[in-house]
Amino acid sequence: MPTESTRFIAPDALLAHWQGHRRLTRRVIDAFPDEKLFSFSVGGMRPFGALAMEMLTMAVPMVRGVVSGDWSISTKRDPRAKQEVLQLWDESTEQLNALWPQIPPERFLETLTAFGQYTDVLHALILYVIDNEIHHRGQGYVYLRALGIAPPAFYDRS
Amino acid sequence: MPTESTRFIAPDALLAHWQGHRRLTRRVIDAFPDEKLFSFSVGGMRPFGALAMEMLTMAVPMVRGVVSGDWSISTKRDPRAKQEVLQLWDESTEQLNALWPQIPPERFLETLTAFGQYTDVLHALILYVIDNEIHHRGQGYVYLRALGIAPPAFYDRS
Repeated sequence: MPTESTRFIAPDALLAHWQGHRRLTRRVIDAFPDEKLFSFSVGGMRPFGALAMEMLTMAVPMVRGVVSGDWSISTKRDPRAKQEVLQLWDESTEQLNALWPQIPPERFLETLTAFGQYTDVLHALILYVIDNEIHHRGQGYVYLRALGIAPPAFYDRS
Repeated sequence: MPTESTRFIAPDALLAHWQGHRRLTRRVIDAFPDEKLFSFSVGGMRPFGALAMEMLTMAVPMVRGVVSGDWSISTKRDPRAKQEVLQLWDESTEQLNALWPQIPPERFLETLTAFGQYTDVLHALILYVIDNEIHHRGQGYVYLRALGIAPPAFYDRS
């Protein structure tokens, strides 16, 4: 029978880790000039605003789906003013904090199907959402440098 | 007393997750033309070869340090042929698989100082190494697109 000693990280610590990443991603969004957020990119890739909207349509919808079985995504990914993206980001932060403790801890080790099509162990589904955020944020760092803007420090999650 | 139910992910599953990321990163290294790996970048950032060498000097040295207390880093970060980077990558894969099970599971929840200067809970130190790889690999995706090369699929970890 597994015990505490078979744990790499506990659910509450993982949420804290994720919210640290989300604070950094918020600073990256905020570092873009408003007029570049949904227009500038490198190599024909999506602008950072589109990537931020993707993150918003993955994070809360994933956790809400696990908690409620409602896998709908209400937020559209359309371009919008930076302040509105940041406001949606802050609302998501609060929603994640409220929803996360409602996941029964044993569920993280269970296999389920998210959004009607992605079947995996829950911890892998959630890590995918976090990893996707880190991946696209790294892309955003290049966009900022290409714009001559110094990105926020990667190691600072405060 | 915490039990299995307070576990987000177990150590062996976390290693499998990391090795999946490392297989993808290997494909990104391999996607670069040899002559671009240590020369091409965007926005004055480091070339992808330098980032790959950074990853190599973090992954095994972190896990070896935890297991042995030896925090030295023997691999230099100098530019080299792509095949040599890939060979170092494959050697690191084997070394990680051999070292990881030697970490006493309870250590992941303990605070320690890595490389004589980074003090944190071990799971946070290890997640930092993985997240740093994902972050810089996202940067590599932009370099590949700017070179007109389609990067490997982010979701494929096989």
